[in-house]
Amino acid sequence: MPIDFPNLPDLQDGRLSQTLQNILDNKTKPPGSLGQLETLARQLGEILGSEAPELVAPQLLVFAGDHGLAARGVSAYPSDVTWQMVENFLAGGAAVSVLARLHGITLCVVDCGVAHDFLAPGSVVRPRLVVRKIAAGTADSSTQPAMTPAQCDDAINNGMALVRQLPGNVLLLGEMGIGNTSAASLLMARLSGAPIAQCTGAGSGLDGAAVARKTALLSQVLELHANARSPLQALAAFGGFEMATMLGSVMQAAQQRRVIVVDGFITGAVVMLAHALQPLVLQRCVFAHRSGERGHGLMLEQLGVYPVLDLGLRLGEGSGAALAWPLLRSACAILSDMASFASAGVSQKSSTAPH
Amino acid sequence: MPIDFPNLPDLQDGRLSQTLQNILDNKTKPPGSLGQLETLARQLGEILGSEAPELVAPQLLVFAGDHGLAARGVSAYPSDVTWQMVENFLAGGAAVSVLARLHGITLCVVDCGVAHDFLAPGSVVRPRLVVRKIAAGTADSSTQPAMTPAQCDDAINNGMALVRQLPGNVLLLGEMGIGNTSAASLLMARLSGAPIAQCTGAGSGLDGAAVARKTALLSQVLELHANARSPLQALAAFGGFEMATMLGSVMQAAQQRRVIVVDGFITGAVVMLAHALQPLVLQRCVFAHRSGERGHGLMLEQLGVYPVLDLGLRLGEGSGAALAWPLLRSACAILSDMASFASAGVSQKSSTAPH
Repeated sequence: MPIDFPNLPDLQDGRLSQTLQNILDNKTKPPGSLGQLETLARQLGEILGSEAPELVAPQLLVFAGDHGLAARGVSAYPSDVTWQMVENFLAGGAAVSVLARLHGITLCVVDCGVAHDFLAPGSVVRPRLVVRKIAAGTADSSTQPAMTPAQCDDAINNGMALVRQLPGNVLLLGEMGIGNTSAASLLMARLSGAPIAQCTGAGSGLDGAAVARKTALLSQVLELHANARSPLQALAAFGGFEMATMLGSVMQAAQQRRVIVVDGFITGAVVMLAHALQPLVLQRCVFAHRSGERGHGLMLEQLGVYPVLDLGLRLGEGSGAALAWPLLRSACAILSDMASFASAGVSQKSSTAPH
Repeated sequence: MPIDFPNLPDLQDGRLSQTLQNILDNKTKPPGSLGQLETLARQLGEILGSEAPELVAPQLLVFAGDHGLAARGVSAYPSDVTWQMVENFLAGGAAVSVLARLHGITLCVVDCGVAHDFLAPGSVVRPRLVVRKIAAGTADSSTQPAMTPAQCDDAINNGMALVRQLPGNVLLLGEMGIGNTSAASLLMARLSGAPIAQCTGAGSGLDGAAVARKTALLSQVLELHANARSPLQALAAFGGFEMATMLGSVMQAAQQRRVIVVDGFITGAVVMLAHALQPLVLQRCVFAHRSGERGHGLMLEQLGVYPVLDLGLRLGEGSGAALAWPLLRSACAILSDMASFASAGVSQKSSTAPH
């Protein structure tokens, strides 16, 4: 059955935006002098519907899945790295594990379709792991759609259900899946109309010649699925189970007015899909960083959004989202805890221009 | 007596840099995929002389002082705001107070020369305040040198002595002083040779016409002190007591291999001075952000350094240094806590190029 994504309210409609701006302007600092941190504070207030927004129990979900297209050699790493890295996330040794732990973020891995069994026979649970497996990897999109429409719907529904059960009011997006940079490039090209070469980069570390071969292959894949025009058709043709599940989670989080922290290129492609389905999703999204992956800068431009970090990251996993997290906490603290000119007895800006 | 700044060892000389790079390359991530965070991790390891550097008891000093030149109307705010903001720092209501508290940084205010008494008659101590007052504000540099050579030396010695007593291994730089953007512009112009117009901006919020008047005045001040060519002569001619004290603290911190976290334009000008005295000081400095103040981008370029944040901040106080702090902690955690390919059993990058 078709999935219903109800319309989202416009968060900039009400008086709250103006109130938040007034509060910021009355804090003991020259107006606007905290730059993008003020923009972020206002946005967090708008999303959470509060003049003193509180970020509660942040949840980072690492959506994981394998890609049939990986067999065509689009990545510098073998597909086995997907499950090996999931084990690394669970053991706490990956970058995102370390950063989440350091910054007080709860991390869970969602097996959306990894070609590996993480549970021992007879076992049904493992700490930090949620199994919502659609299949052991997608089909090879260079010969057929990556998933069937039913698989795509199931994954989206899984993602929505997951977030419904999640505590807190913040969802940080992470992902793992060898080959998923290719899937993201394909989705970006189809949704934006940008040439595939502008959407394709080195992923986890291809050299120039390998990027050229990857680009040529992706160009063929795009052509093979020339009829997959709508967001969900494109997702089924090119995407991964981890991306479809993430899309469901994003749509549900937006509906519940959770703050959504977007990581890099792959999570960005999923947010492009979400934006195509419901443009106001973007009001709920904080873009953590501009990644080093070719295509990501253009993607952010096309969405008309501005990231908070620009550190040349190109790891994924949600590592950039975790790194940006303290800036979100800082923005809320500015709004809640700073004194106003009146309360601190500090003189305001001279009304007369300096002589 | 002349102050002795002993030569600093070159931190990139030894084998540690290469060892740190090898450790980073063996972590479970594509080589270099954590971008600038890896550069930062290597630098922190080099400064602290460790393969697993630990940041201990970070100290943020807000150096405060008043400027005689402020009477000429170079700021959008009256000079009284200096002491009022110091009270706000002490009360915990300023941006830097809020951010330092949130991120576990100890904050102290150093009264280097504010035109105000913070201690009640007979009282000698106040929590979070250190009084190292040279005078109640500098002289007006548009008519005479801002300070005498002896005052300048005294302030530098104060700064060095302060850091000697400081716990931990990290110094974060902050400042407060109405008029000190002008002092920083003058120092930058003299040290770099860049035209004063390129070094002069809106400070705490001048409009275009006021910036033009400020630039014209600063141009006259530069000419008046045409003979103040050496770093310490320029500091005495143009600087503030808070800047001279900060310079002493920076030189001492560098000597002790502390990590120095540089905030924005004013702290950057002091680091320019330190660099002119001992170029290797820069190896000990992490530049927190590129500020919105005109001149700061050029200053960072001239120093050949790259900041970790770019958020359009233009507040000072050390607010940018406090905001960048979690990134330093993150960089150390990556180095100490991430698994290696071998320890996690994750496959390395394919040696053959993808087909």
